[in-house]
Amino acid sequence: MNRLESQLAFIREVDKLKQVFRQTLLMDGARRENDAEHSWHLALMALILREYAAQPELDLARVVKMVTIHDLVEIDAGDTFRYDAEGNRDKAEREQRAASRIFGMLPPDQAREIRMLWDEFEERSSPESQFAAALDRLHPMLHNFATQGAAWRKHTVTRAQVLDQNRHMEQGAPALWAYAENLIDKAVQLGYLAP
Amino acid sequence: MNRLESQLAFIREVDKLKQVFRQTLLMDGARRENDAEHSWHLALMALILREYAAQPELDLARVVKMVTIHDLVEIDAGDTFRYDAEGNRDKAEREQRAASRIFGMLPPDQAREIRMLWDEFEERSSPESQFAAALDRLHPMLHNFATQGAAWRKHTVTRAQVLDQNRHMEQGAPALWAYAENLIDKAVQLGYLAP
Repeated sequence: MNRLESQLAFIREVDKLKQVFRQTLLMDGARRENDAEHSWHLALMALILREYAAQPELDLARVVKMVTIHDLVEIDAGDTFRYDAEGNRDKAEREQRAASRIFGMLPPDQAREIRMLWDEFEERSSPESQFAAALDRLHPMLHNFATQGAAWRKHTVTRAQVLDQNRHMEQGAPALWAYAENLIDKAVQLGYLAP
Repeated sequence: MNRLESQLAFIREVDKLKQVFRQTLLMDGARRENDAEHSWHLALMALILREYAAQPELDLARVVKMVTIHDLVEIDAGDTFRYDAEGNRDKAEREQRAASRIFGMLPPDQAREIRMLWDEFEERSSPESQFAAALDRLHPMLHNFATQGAAWRKHTVTRAQVLDQNRHMEQGAPALWAYAENLIDKAVQLGYLAP
């Protein structure tokens, strides 16, 4: 297979991300959101909200690349709900295997590049990945609030869990974390989230 | 409404793109693809296929921004099938109105920025927009080929129409146009596309 054929085989393969469904509902509650839609929404958020990054002079292209590829491993590993302790036990191992197979479809130079981007995102080791991770956490909160806490209530998630799982947003985007804390308080007041 | 509230209102509004459906089916034919999924797929294609841009040293971040926002106007204007002569008559007018309303939800500086990106995409006036447009045309061809020409056959699209509508790909990505021409010929041979 020549280089272009490998690249197009990868592009066809990742179409499957459109059928990996998250716990989050669309803003109007019509159905669950899938990973491709979520990734697109994060890319748009990165463009619009970059001024709230802890380091606004960060490399925005790198942020957008990261959010575009950050969920590809879920094609094999599935979406693991953030508050599912059981599912999160072997998540890392499942995702590592997925990364090898899926990124491995690309020509070696690109497989390495995407793998490095994904590792950076997972490790939150740079201003870019910290900002990308903050967007990745803010996004489902906006959806949960808009749907009266649908996914939170379904899984009886508590305020303490949401604070605990998302507090690192402060590192990448302090102003967005301040907004999120306020949203969490309002969600508790309105009965969308358990106190 | 303060600046962040306007930005988040826009981010909530554009969730509707996930419910604007295209003629194209997913690669496995399961259902029609929506605009948010399509936009995400183009962003990924931009990362992987940039070496085939007519000017490979182009500003990739700009390409990714453009493909991320290029279909937002379809929230109001709907998706117009490329081979629908009737629908294409008032498409420009419908999309202009949509751009004013949707981009107008943003703070003025960002409304202007997104509007300029969208105009650039529509006009194909730069290496970035020519490459973005080439990806936007290649993408449904890959889907149509994978689904035995589902959307082409449904609307009895001909080889001449596909060549005519997509020939400008050559400007933004000559090697991808060469690939596409070959795919079109194969599609005719296999009966996926009318000769």
